[in-house]
Amino acid sequence: MTVTLSATLAANEDIERRRRAGEHVLHLAFGEAGLPVHPALRDKLVAASDRNGYGPVAGAAELRSAAAGYWTRRGLTTDPEQVVSGPGSKSLLYGLLLAIGGDIVLPRPSWVSYAAQADLVGSHPILVPTPHGEGGVPDPDLVTAAVQRARAQGRTVRSLLVTLPDNPTGRLATPPTIRRLVEVARELDLYIISDEIYRDLLHDPATPYTSPADLAPERTVVTTGLSKSLALGGWRIGVARLPDDAADLRAGLLAVASEIWSAPAAPVQEAAAYAFTDPPELTERIALSGRLHGTLAHAVRDRFVAIGADVPVPQGGFYLYPDLSHLRLGGAAEITRILLDEHGIGVLPGHAFGDDPAAARVRVAVSLLYGTTADDRTAALNSADPLQLPWIAAALDHLSMGLKELSLVRQAALVP
Amino acid sequence: MTVTLSATLAANEDIERRRRAGEHVLHLAFGEAGLPVHPALRDKLVAASDRNGYGPVAGAAELRSAAAGYWTRRGLTTDPEQVVSGPGSKSLLYGLLLAIGGDIVLPRPSWVSYAAQADLVGSHPILVPTPHGEGGVPDPDLVTAAVQRARAQGRTVRSLLVTLPDNPTGRLATPPTIRRLVEVARELDLYIISDEIYRDLLHDPATPYTSPADLAPERTVVTTGLSKSLALGGWRIGVARLPDDAADLRAGLLAVASEIWSAPAAPVQEAAAYAFTDPPELTERIALSGRLHGTLAHAVRDRFVAIGADVPVPQGGFYLYPDLSHLRLGGAAEITRILLDEHGIGVLPGHAFGDDPAAARVRVAVSLLYGTTADDRTAALNSADPLQLPWIAAALDHLSMGLKELSLVRQAALVP
Repeated sequence: MTVTLSATLAANEDIERRRRAGEHVLHLAFGEAGLPVHPALRDKLVAASDRNGYGPVAGAAELRSAAAGYWTRRGLTTDPEQVVSGPGSKSLLYGLLLAIGGDIVLPRPSWVSYAAQADLVGSHPILVPTPHGEGGVPDPDLVTAAVQRARAQGRTVRSLLVTLPDNPTGRLATPPTIRRLVEVARELDLYIISDEIYRDLLHDPATPYTSPADLAPERTVVTTGLSKSLALGGWRIGVARLPDDAADLRAGLLAVASEIWSAPAAPVQEAAAYAFTDPPELTERIALSGRLHGTLAHAVRDRFVAIGADVPVPQGGFYLYPDLSHLRLGGAAEITRILLDEHGIGVLPGHAFGDDPAAARVRVAVSLLYGTTADDRTAALNSADPLQLPWIAAALDHLSMGLKELSLVRQAALVP
Repeated sequence: MTVTLSATLAANEDIERRRRAGEHVLHLAFGEAGLPVHPALRDKLVAASDRNGYGPVAGAAELRSAAAGYWTRRGLTTDPEQVVSGPGSKSLLYGLLLAIGGDIVLPRPSWVSYAAQADLVGSHPILVPTPHGEGGVPDPDLVTAAVQRARAQGRTVRSLLVTLPDNPTGRLATPPTIRRLVEVARELDLYIISDEIYRDLLHDPATPYTSPADLAPERTVVTTGLSKSLALGGWRIGVARLPDDAADLRAGLLAVASEIWSAPAAPVQEAAAYAFTDPPELTERIALSGRLHGTLAHAVRDRFVAIGADVPVPQGGFYLYPDLSHLRLGGAAEITRILLDEHGIGVLPGHAFGDDPAAARVRVAVSLLYGTTADDRTAALNSADPLQLPWIAAALDHLSMGLKELSLVRQAALVP
């Protein structure tokens, strides 16, 4: 066992500890959606509170059918038999790694848990940089050489992974990039695992979105869940859409599921079955959430840009990925430590996402700025101008001040 | 991937399919507790339906504290820091296998998922027969030789597992056997994983119960959950009690948990926190459940004994393990097939539990006899004489008839 507690969770627990100890820390390190449960989902959970049977490993028929409808409405005709649910899409990603086997190509940077999961199953991730200006996809021009090199060493490479839109960068890979990546995956005979958990949280819903499953349904597994779009992280519910005619992969995934988690909590499955039908009140909630995440992500970006950081424009989810290398204060670990210890700003270092530790890139999550009570969060969600809400304005001031101090410290250090 | 869907779940799905197709099949193959959710637990779930944060990987503080109290009241003083929760004790068992590493000694027979989980993590189970007349423990007199043989072959053996009381046999290992096993584990420096999920369902609460943790708290991990005692299988909640001073094991288990399932569903955690305080109405419910399981297990045993089967007397849970070898109809697979196809009796073959396929032993679960509606099940639970309830009497008649036919077929075959 070389794996340690997920970097995200460990940083989160450290920040929580500091806050309990009275330190004033701005929590920008944790990928929790930061919004209340929609009342309609609470009602569904309550109505299903008598459900206590194990049920099918793949998930209840209503849930699989609803998820099939979810994807079908997004242009991917789906049969309920292609759907497998799990307690969070994270569990499904783990199950897929185990069921597919072999090594996996990951974008660099990419979400902390992909590489950690690969370690757990004894797979060796092949980290391939993202194309310039994009995030969440390994550069198609570099994938072939990386896979051929690994295969020449006798390694078995079976899959590649994309995150659309991305954590940590907040960027969405463009349709032409996805098209080229799909061609490469076909040539190399790789499964594509497409983590689309932030799909419904694009800040501009008109952004062109291509899933690899649109182009290569025969080799693409799509995963999603309700942790981000409907803030149900603590309810633990995700779904995977398997390729057509993937009986072996389905059997393998169900075998893993049946021996580790059995199925998601039954009452949660019923609530999720409702959510995946895209009812109007939840569609509206998701739209409001996407708007709030976008507003805050851009506001936070402005503050990093103001001190000269290079920050890709976020397009979806609630993350940004500033590069503070211009301050010349060290690599990702050093800048993360300085931000936390000296300026009360908690972020995650880029190397936790597999990025170059020498680059001063950090991942910033904006979703814990919305408030600490359900009322504040609801107010933020419904506000036409959330940046004017006093608790959000104060948090942004804390950030601005901290970043300015950081920048001044640096300038002072440069004075001979 | 050589692992296939858990034998229990596959058999269950097969039987469900036959029933939907109109076949009259007595479902004695699935380990679901077959009872409704207690209203107090529904109320707690409802009250916690606003909880949507990820929360700590080990579980909410209230849950860990309640589970610590649960064990402390059973004579095992426990600190909440020793407790880790998961979506079912199955997930925790998997995490423990991964975190402890090496090969594991399992009783033969033992629950299907232990060996399947070992396969998934690349561990090789060492199956050691149970002592004569007992179940759920590897015979202490055989463990040392088996482990030394494996170690001489260069294998790393790190743990042994017990199930108290047992699935599939329904037997509880005696305190002297546990004492000897603990000595052996000390000599061989093995962790003991003690699966105690049926502990509160002893048919006679006065049966002497010794957990290995009572004798070797420094090396014993106890797991339990609410799937059996409170029939919450579909809610997916379990807890593990780690040894004192097991910081590395705890860190390893939390690392696995954080990368696969994060934590049990948050609203379920709150309900479980309540359940683990042993409130009077739930203690009473569990007592009634144990009584019902015992009554049915003994009634079903009588029917197998009536045709000459050798059936160890069940002591806890809702299983029995008849040996039908005297009929000379073949091994476990053959007798299971004959029971299902020719007599409409669905059971699991002993070899699914690692037992000798040549022996005609099958695992019988009685808990799906209580009824198909919540009302029927509640009536069974509260009945002073559940065997007289028409649906239960009819099921037992079906069983008696099927077994008599089976026995007559055999006698006819013997007539020259």
